[in-house]
Amino acid sequence: MATLKIPDPVPSPTDDAEKLRNAVQGLGTDEKAIIQILGCRNASQRREIKETYQQLYKESLTDRLRSELSGDFRKAVILWTYDPPERDAKLANKVLKGKKKGAKQLQVLVEIACANSPHHLQAVRQAYCSLFDCSLEEDIVSAVSLPLRKLLVGLVSSYRYDKELVDMNLANSEAAKLHEAIKGKQLDHDDIVFVLGTRNVYQLRATFKCYQENFGAPIEQDIKKCGKDDLESLLRIVILCLDSPEKHFAEVIRTAIIGLGTDEDSLSRAIITRAEIDTTKIRGEYFNMYKSKLDDDVIGDTSGDYKDFLMTLLGAKI
Amino acid sequence: MATLKIPDPVPSPTDDAEKLRNAVQGLGTDEKAIIQILGCRNASQRREIKETYQQLYKESLTDRLRSELSGDFRKAVILWTYDPPERDAKLANKVLKGKKKGAKQLQVLVEIACANSPHHLQAVRQAYCSLFDCSLEEDIVSAVSLPLRKLLVGLVSSYRYDKELVDMNLANSEAAKLHEAIKGKQLDHDDIVFVLGTRNVYQLRATFKCYQENFGAPIEQDIKKCGKDDLESLLRIVILCLDSPEKHFAEVIRTAIIGLGTDEDSLSRAIITRAEIDTTKIRGEYFNMYKSKLDDDVIGDTSGDYKDFLMTLLGAKI
Repeated sequence: MATLKIPDPVPSPTDDAEKLRNAVQGLGTDEKAIIQILGCRNASQRREIKETYQQLYKESLTDRLRSELSGDFRKAVILWTYDPPERDAKLANKVLKGKKKGAKQLQVLVEIACANSPHHLQAVRQAYCSLFDCSLEEDIVSAVSLPLRKLLVGLVSSYRYDKELVDMNLANSEAAKLHEAIKGKQLDHDDIVFVLGTRNVYQLRATFKCYQENFGAPIEQDIKKCGKDDLESLLRIVILCLDSPEKHFAEVIRTAIIGLGTDEDSLSRAIITRAEIDTTKIRGEYFNMYKSKLDDDVIGDTSGDYKDFLMTLLGAKI
Repeated sequence: MATLKIPDPVPSPTDDAEKLRNAVQGLGTDEKAIIQILGCRNASQRREIKETYQQLYKESLTDRLRSELSGDFRKAVILWTYDPPERDAKLANKVLKGKKKGAKQLQVLVEIACANSPHHLQAVRQAYCSLFDCSLEEDIVSAVSLPLRKLLVGLVSSYRYDKELVDMNLANSEAAKLHEAIKGKQLDHDDIVFVLGTRNVYQLRATFKCYQENFGAPIEQDIKKCGKDDLESLLRIVILCLDSPEKHFAEVIRTAIIGLGTDEDSLSRAIITRAEIDTTKIRGEYFNMYKSKLDDDVIGDTSGDYKDFLMTLLGAKI
């Protein structure tokens, strides 16, 4: 399901750290070596490499990469080098401290809360406290106004049951509750926040299915009919991230690529945060949705080391 | 701060398991030995003893104690034998599956959410999922009606920053927000839930202090003036558990002892859940508040092995 390709046998952290040291030392930087090493190691391997590098050379690998690389390539490599919970805490903080806080920006919080395991979300909350001296929820409350605030606090505070357990009666009754609230255009209704913020994802997928069967239209379509404000957009993203994260990320990548210029931050985020989870599925959904090949589109819209790095994460040999 | 007395040197888990085995085997049970061993070991020591006992005798120590002991003594020993997160998850579940769900019962949830470390609360949520195949929040949503539901879901979902960091401007402005909501008798106002459910306890204590300084009365007193329903009572308990857990538990013990008969479940819960945290402080507050000695009152209201067990947890030599 993930596209990340790890060599077998995998070199020792010391081997990798030494090669990285050679790549960043002396005149010029060997970007290819950096891509081939870091772009082909999973999170725990990258953590070991960073620790070994620090021990061997008494400097932070991340800091060194930051000073050696540049542009979107640098941003992407640094993001990839962080531990996943730390990376997501930083992404969340950047959004919350940023000027613009519409659905497009806040969707990062939804991805963290709804498209990851409960365990990962908890690790992000912990990393957020360590890095920023306050809780993620506190920053949401102060940075985001109602009604988005209520929805987001509910979602990032969730700790969902993580096994596949579905109660069809409940799915039917909660589909009706959601329908009732949506029909009344009360998208910040407590029922919506409670259902979306407490139920396990398998249960929610059954609920969304019941919704469509019982009320004739997919829930996200009914939400769209309520309006075009941030709440409607964000709630649609919530549903998508819970129901089918791969569709959401296919959409993020498409939106980043289509149109004038490329939104590199979104493109990098989607590929980097999912390369160890479900990029294979995203590739499939992308083709289903847009009749175009994700890899071709990424290649067509990026260049140089940045392109090579993303393509490596997508499993290409460069 | 804790009254629990652990012998130095502490016997090995194998020694303890063997002694416990002797205590439960043959004719009659040696309750004194059980009290002297389990009542003088901390949570991680008890866990090791349970694991060793299981390995040595191929039976669960908890199950064996359940079949050997009886009455309030049994209930208390079993509760003490559980791992703290498992114990609290079971206490929460018992309340949520029980018939009565007023402030008196639901205060158990508030204690778990507001009078413990964020780390412990997270461990309880995890234990709850493992034990009961759904999240704690899901059970609150289905068992508790609004407005208590909203407050409780907010509190048990919190993951507060856990260091002492106080912003006095924020304390002043949030005291004003709380006052505004309380003045308008809107005790389930979003602002109340956000402030009480996201801020770190040190910040909240500063906010409560500002409240009293700026508005002339302690916040819990103003809440009392709003009415005598479950929401008012529970919110008062929330404030107390956040501001001064030792006062809350002194009150729980007092209420359990005073009046006709003893509320053994509450008495046991207060002493058992706090014996490794702050029973020394509770003892002090109890005396301040009631001009009576906690130990004397517990002795006066209990008897036999049950009394000996509680007093052992309170640091007495029996």
